[in-house]
Amino acid sequence: MSAEQFADRHIGPDPDDERRMLETVGYGSVDELMDAAIPEVIRWHGTLDLPAPAGEREALAELRALAARNTVAVSMIGLGYHGTHTPAVIRRNVLENPAWYTAYTPYQPEISQGRLEALLNFQTMVTDLTGLATANASMLDEGTAAAEAMTLARRASKSRSPVYVVDADALPQTIAVIASRAEPLGIDVRVLDLGAEELPGEFFGLHLQYPGASGAVRDHTALVEAAHAVGALVTVAADLLALTLLRPPGEIGVDIAAGTTQRFGVPMGFGGPHAGYLAVRAGLERMLPGRLVGVSRDADGNPAYRLALQTREQHIRREKATSNICTAQVLLAVMAGMYAVYHGPDGLRAIARRTHDMAARLAAGLRAGGVEVTDVAFFDTVTAVVPGRAAEVVAAAAERNVNLRLVDADRVGVSCDETTTGVHLRSVWAAFGVDGVDGDVDATLPVTLARTSDFLTHPVFRTHHSETAMLRYLRRLSDFDYALDRGMIPLGSCTMKLNATTEMEAITWPEFAHLHPFAPDAQTAGYRELIGQLEAWLAEVTGYDAVSVQPNAGSQGELAGLLAIRAYHRDRGAGHRDVCLIPSSAHGTNAASAVMAGMRVVVVACDADGNVDLVDLDAKIDKHRDALAAIMVTYPSTHGVYETGIASLCAKVHDAGGQVYVDGANLNALVGFAKPGKFGADVSHLNLHKTFCIPHGGGGPGVGPVAVRAHLAPFLPGDPLGAHVDGKPAISAARYGSAGILPIPWAYLRMMGAEGLTRATGVAVLAANYVAARLRNHFPVLYAGNKGLVAHECILDLRPLTKATGVSVDDVAKRLIDYGFHAPTMSFPVAGTLMVEPTESEDLAELDRFCDAMIAIRAEIDKVGSGEWPAGDNPLANAPHTAAMVSGDEWPHPYPRSVGAYPGTVDRMAKYWPPVRRIDGAYGDRNLVCSCPSPEAFES
Amino acid sequence: MSAEQFADRHIGPDPDDERRMLETVGYGSVDELMDAAIPEVIRWHGTLDLPAPAGEREALAELRALAARNTVAVSMIGLGYHGTHTPAVIRRNVLENPAWYTAYTPYQPEISQGRLEALLNFQTMVTDLTGLATANASMLDEGTAAAEAMTLARRASKSRSPVYVVDADALPQTIAVIASRAEPLGIDVRVLDLGAEELPGEFFGLHLQYPGASGAVRDHTALVEAAHAVGALVTVAADLLALTLLRPPGEIGVDIAAGTTQRFGVPMGFGGPHAGYLAVRAGLERMLPGRLVGVSRDADGNPAYRLALQTREQHIRREKATSNICTAQVLLAVMAGMYAVYHGPDGLRAIARRTHDMAARLAAGLRAGGVEVTDVAFFDTVTAVVPGRAAEVVAAAAERNVNLRLVDADRVGVSCDETTTGVHLRSVWAAFGVDGVDGDVDATLPVTLARTSDFLTHPVFRTHHSETAMLRYLRRLSDFDYALDRGMIPLGSCTMKLNATTEMEAITWPEFAHLHPFAPDAQTAGYRELIGQLEAWLAEVTGYDAVSVQPNAGSQGELAGLLAIRAYHRDRGAGHRDVCLIPSSAHGTNAASAVMAGMRVVVVACDADGNVDLVDLDAKIDKHRDALAAIMVTYPSTHGVYETGIASLCAKVHDAGGQVYVDGANLNALVGFAKPGKFGADVSHLNLHKTFCIPHGGGGPGVGPVAVRAHLAPFLPGDPLGAHVDGKPAISAARYGSAGILPIPWAYLRMMGAEGLTRATGVAVLAANYVAARLRNHFPVLYAGNKGLVAHECILDLRPLTKATGVSVDDVAKRLIDYGFHAPTMSFPVAGTLMVEPTESEDLAELDRFCDAMIAIRAEIDKVGSGEWPAGDNPLANAPHTAAMVSGDEWPHPYPRSVGAYPGTVDRMAKYWPPVRRIDGAYGDRNLVCSCPSPEAFES
Repeated sequence: MSAEQFADRHIGPDPDDERRMLETVGYGSVDELMDAAIPEVIRWHGTLDLPAPAGEREALAELRALAARNTVAVSMIGLGYHGTHTPAVIRRNVLENPAWYTAYTPYQPEISQGRLEALLNFQTMVTDLTGLATANASMLDEGTAAAEAMTLARRASKSRSPVYVVDADALPQTIAVIASRAEPLGIDVRVLDLGAEELPGEFFGLHLQYPGASGAVRDHTALVEAAHAVGALVTVAADLLALTLLRPPGEIGVDIAAGTTQRFGVPMGFGGPHAGYLAVRAGLERMLPGRLVGVSRDADGNPAYRLALQTREQHIRREKATSNICTAQVLLAVMAGMYAVYHGPDGLRAIARRTHDMAARLAAGLRAGGVEVTDVAFFDTVTAVVPGRAAEVVAAAAERNVNLRLVDADRVGVSCDETTTGVHLRSVWAAFGVDGVDGDVDATLPVTLARTSDFLTHPVFRTHHSETAMLRYLRRLSDFDYALDRGMIPLGSCTMKLNATTEMEAITWPEFAHLHPFAPDAQTAGYRELIGQLEAWLAEVTGYDAVSVQPNAGSQGELAGLLAIRAYHRDRGAGHRDVCLIPSSAHGTNAASAVMAGMRVVVVACDADGNVDLVDLDAKIDKHRDALAAIMVTYPSTHGVYETGIASLCAKVHDAGGQVYVDGANLNALVGFAKPGKFGADVSHLNLHKTFCIPHGGGGPGVGPVAVRAHLAPFLPGDPLGAHVDGKPAISAARYGSAGILPIPWAYLRMMGAEGLTRATGVAVLAANYVAARLRNHFPVLYAGNKGLVAHECILDLRPLTKATGVSVDDVAKRLIDYGFHAPTMSFPVAGTLMVEPTESEDLAELDRFCDAMIAIRAEIDKVGSGEWPAGDNPLANAPHTAAMVSGDEWPHPYPRSVGAYPGTVDRMAKYWPPVRRIDGAYGDRNLVCSCPSPEAFES
Repeated sequence: MSAEQFADRHIGPDPDDERRMLETVGYGSVDELMDAAIPEVIRWHGTLDLPAPAGEREALAELRALAARNTVAVSMIGLGYHGTHTPAVIRRNVLENPAWYTAYTPYQPEISQGRLEALLNFQTMVTDLTGLATANASMLDEGTAAAEAMTLARRASKSRSPVYVVDADALPQTIAVIASRAEPLGIDVRVLDLGAEELPGEFFGLHLQYPGASGAVRDHTALVEAAHAVGALVTVAADLLALTLLRPPGEIGVDIAAGTTQRFGVPMGFGGPHAGYLAVRAGLERMLPGRLVGVSRDADGNPAYRLALQTREQHIRREKATSNICTAQVLLAVMAGMYAVYHGPDGLRAIARRTHDMAARLAAGLRAGGVEVTDVAFFDTVTAVVPGRAAEVVAAAAERNVNLRLVDADRVGVSCDETTTGVHLRSVWAAFGVDGVDGDVDATLPVTLARTSDFLTHPVFRTHHSETAMLRYLRRLSDFDYALDRGMIPLGSCTMKLNATTEMEAITWPEFAHLHPFAPDAQTAGYRELIGQLEAWLAEVTGYDAVSVQPNAGSQGELAGLLAIRAYHRDRGAGHRDVCLIPSSAHGTNAASAVMAGMRVVVVACDADGNVDLVDLDAKIDKHRDALAAIMVTYPSTHGVYETGIASLCAKVHDAGGQVYVDGANLNALVGFAKPGKFGADVSHLNLHKTFCIPHGGGGPGVGPVAVRAHLAPFLPGDPLGAHVDGKPAISAARYGSAGILPIPWAYLRMMGAEGLTRATGVAVLAANYVAARLRNHFPVLYAGNKGLVAHECILDLRPLTKATGVSVDDVAKRLIDYGFHAPTMSFPVAGTLMVEPTESEDLAELDRFCDAMIAIRAEIDKVGSGEWPAGDNPLANAPHTAAMVSGDEWPHPYPRSVGAYPGTVDRMAKYWPPVRRIDGAYGDRNLVCSCPSPEAFES
């Protein structure tokens, strides 16, 4: 007996609100509304087969029981995942602070300066440590970063060779991800022992690990020169902590660096999420995939941050895109960057030295006990040679609660990190059967490889070293930003709903946070049970037969799904099927993913109502019938409409031998009412960071599981450590991707139950229709389905108003900031429009506050249209208004300050002020600066 | 081997900063400075005997080990402490959020509107539920609230009788605290079984429990009438959850209600901290002790909150004060109030009904099994009669992990709460040896006692019921406020230093949070070991022989210390010694505490240098030699000076047979350098919320242990449950007071170690002298000791400037808000001055920012003085400036807006804006409103 239902806390409108909203929309109940909105042909009338909902305390108790079935061992496995101490001030004030974790991707830079600065710190940290010119704002993990480096090298290389050479001492999971990515692109990956084997005569790129997986620190200068001699680019996957002591890749002419920043204070989390990184030498910056933060200026000419080079984005380039990466790992990149801010260069060096000293003591102790240790320079990892005894040693260590790396029957790898203690060393020595010697040892790295250059010289890395200073810096930055903890973020397609505290709780428990992805199964029973339950529940919700949580972003889920289709066709001898139909309204990522999966994209037109044009579909199917691999559609469509033709569409594609991919981005409109796996789709990816409450974290982490019907199940992602064996693709570096945050969707599903989830969908659709109904007379609502109803979002068409008045979508978006809102999605999927998704978590008061603001803005637009306000100087054109602007000694504008500052019913006491005025993005793209500007730049 | 020292994170200035500060002050090292500053006569040259400092992770690991030695049982003991579910959104965003926990007492109301609103919610909740007119902003616990109710009744009663009647069914610990408080005041407490025994003919007050400790819900109407008939006042100690279903005390004419709000979402914490409450009928509000939040208006006439009736304060009334209570339990009151906001009246009623249903099911099951249950109406607690078997039943329950109350050999008490489940009931039944019956039972309360009146009708209790809405409300309020997470709070005497995250961690662990104070010792071994270590370390730091952590505020520590002195004299047959000497510079609480301890206060003058006038001391000692009980001095003095006469002062008092009480408020200037217990004092209280890093929480919780030399140890506080037996006073309701937050000072001491603590003291003194040195030429620094040095704080004298220009201390304090600071302490200990305590946690950049602001303000004062700005209309007189003001359409002031808004080097991007203009406190005192104003009041 539970005193209260979690669903009542998750769903914003209470019964009174609901009644009033239904009145406005014109329906008697949510059921009636949903009956009218959802085409009967896809409607599912059952009750989801999920456990009865748990209360918040019960769910936490179950999570505690699952956590108790995991064993937190001392991890000395290495391979890119290391123990690390998250500074408590960072954990509490970033990872556990909704101001950071509920923020959205910084597309509205004026209200995102805090996380943009934090990301610029991250980029600066990466460029400083790697010695390269430009780093992006993070990658999904080291494996995918390395794969992106490969394709970047291919684009940039003058060599036409399809050969990509990979150091055999690279991380095995990285090799697996590279191989999986290479295959559909026709890239020939050669894994070579570069100490022993010769480089081929031609190749377009070379991937090196530094230090190697074995721990070896080698001088790669000659290899870099040899690669450059044949026109190849060189990527070094480098350990940033090691680079505080070792000569960085940029100083030996390396073109690209890739890797992870996990050990900079981000818990291992059984594989993720962590922030991967990617950095390039000068000249390659415009080819960088992913997000890039840069410095530009605002309307006052002050420095201001925003995402740079957005035109490179896959949603613009679509099938011409060379990467499908959409999101970054912002929350984790912020943590890693702040770790560097808090420790500073001296602190990082001290951590690196201590780590190295531990490894040196470890090796000395082994040698003293007669154990052979491979005789190369090392940083933190030692490979011990124990012929025939490796498994026994690893088992003996596990008994002492220490995990080592079983390299092969004869070799054991042992990695040290900042958490290593003398007690751990003694356990390792004991596992090897030696006494060890405790005491100081000679722990110098080869002088030729020692770092001589300075790094992290910017004041931000030399200022915030007391906890007080760090706390205030974090608060200052978070105060710049607008996140869900301030108000509604009505982003179409992005489903910015409640990320409940109880959902967030478990992710920082040691039993979930501190597991190595390659820990023995015996230590991870709780995690695997949680994942199994989550996969089963997601399968039930979507109507599919199998789910893999490995893809660590929606884009990766797309790739995994398309690779499954590809493998399925090949398995049936239909490897020639390579055409992927994609409606013109689709998210650009779809096209990019299709290209990455080795498919040719054929675009299907939409009709005047925004629906897939079934006539054009027939034509395209006819034209490509034999080559048809798949169609990729989003449902409800990216127009926010329940298209009635979906069942027919599925049938047509199936009839032609194709597979149907339904992009699950809009699943928030389906859960409990329709199941893609039942209405005709073969595969979907889900966005756990949309429908299932993983917070957006300011632009990541995301999780994008792929769900398939049974015939595709054999082709789901495999274990990256076993990928070569089982032939399945490695989509992410870790078997369960970003496992560390899976307790969030688990908790959501567990607490909502069938009834709660279904109610949430109904209220989300009701809210969108309520907004549409209230705003229809002020802005045309583009597209609708049955009975003029939208699904979970609606598109407001500004084009006629823009044409008549010159007021742009941008102006409205920025003006909404003055009213205390984050803008809706701009110009997607239709240029010149705003797409609004209110979600089920906003209560009526907040929905009304938004509608009132939009109506007030419409009246403002009319004043521009009527000439009452001049076109170039009005509250819309000048939005957003900063406090400094409206309190300036001069006020040259033709409207009162109060109209600029406090339009409508904005709360004068609790007004959110953006820290900068409107940002000139193009200026920054022309003058690209992607690391921290000097403090002097901010002096006015 | 620890990679880093916590002390380096706690102490703000780094070695570079330190060097520059020393240069300014004119010393070569901190040691040199301290040698010069501290009189050799008190200087202690040893090294503190504390364990070597632990790193943050090591300290947490040790705390985890201690926690593991506590057992979290299901608590059904009741007696005012109940299991409760803290809503996760409240725990994370209040209790674990530095914006709330690092805030100071809201003496500067313009920058404290958030917590003042939260406290007004609390007051409204208490008045609504009790049915009384006015509630204060919380009390330390139920026991002390009841004791304050007794003295309030005595002041208000027309009866001159010394008799106070206490219901025998009152909580035993409440009776103990009342008795301890009554004795020195000459109050004759009579504990009567009011069902069986007659009321005495005359008495001034009557204390009733509702429901009683036994669980009985009785109609007290006749007793109230009988008491009123003889001029007595009636206090009801009422359970607020029960009052959602039961007729509230205010509706039967009760004068005072007292109690706790613990079960409103505040963990039991082995006794505290929780927010007690005190409410009174109309007519008594001006007699309420403690803090009271009221509504007033700001310079624009808008409603604004501030502490009301501050002139009642003990620091004004001194020895005329009738209560020594200084602080409240703000952080916990905020939580309890937010619990009511989140659940609303319907939610609270549902929780109460469910709790009552559980108790009814429990009783029915016992009766069905043949166990006698006392035959009275009950709410949540059932008393079962099991002749001779009570201990056996309690033990059997404990084996099932359930704690029951052993009333006596024949009776067992069982309390239900919102965490009670059917599983718990079955365990209880099993412990009684009965099968129980599970199912619905008749659970109606007596209709004559049922509540019929509405409550929590204000919209704030009916709006924030979704987690999204709650989260935003908490964010909105916290954004109003200025806390340590924004910048320096240089409060003299209040030591606003870092409250490190690692120190805060353990307090929310279940093993520390969820223990009942009366849990069996076997379940609390970890807690008691932690407390034992903490007491031992505090004894080492202070040089005393014994410490009790029971006092849950500094004021309570004072009382405990003075009661120990009193008991010591009486024990030696010197009960006539009742004079307490107190210097004129003392904190007013000292005098109030002395009066409460039954002493007569005699004031000793200070000399022109601010030191205790030893000549006057001699005179006063001579005059009162035979009656001399004690002297109470603060060291360093409240003037922030190391008085050289301290040793001589101690000797003189001892020679006259008196005891020396050294107020430990300024211990931050002594730790590691001098020990009060070694330089002549007999007893001190410490402020763990000052020197030892318990956060101020916006005005509580505090912890005020009392430390004594061996001869006073027998007279330290006793166990309130055993107080009648052992004759020791009960200072707080729970044996270890606010045990739940003792992990904070434990962690601080554990991580700092001897060297870190000593360094902190040195840097704190250096920082104060640095500020004094930088500001001396702009504001006279009042008082100094050796070589012109101050101790850990300095007093800036504004009186000459005020006289010359009319600019007041208030103006400067409010103007500092515009510069981005919390004001220093105003007009204490000297009217017309500011007392600055920078602490060791502020780095040089922040110290300089403060000094620069003060220097800039001095220049502004000069402009007023020179007539450049008119006296009544200048940036000082108009401070603080709100955003609404400086962006107003009109600007009638003779200085530019930018001077108002962004003086000095204030960061234009990160400016902190107060939500209201200067508040007219007197207006609110004349028009007293102490509950939530209607939303319409805020419409402009």
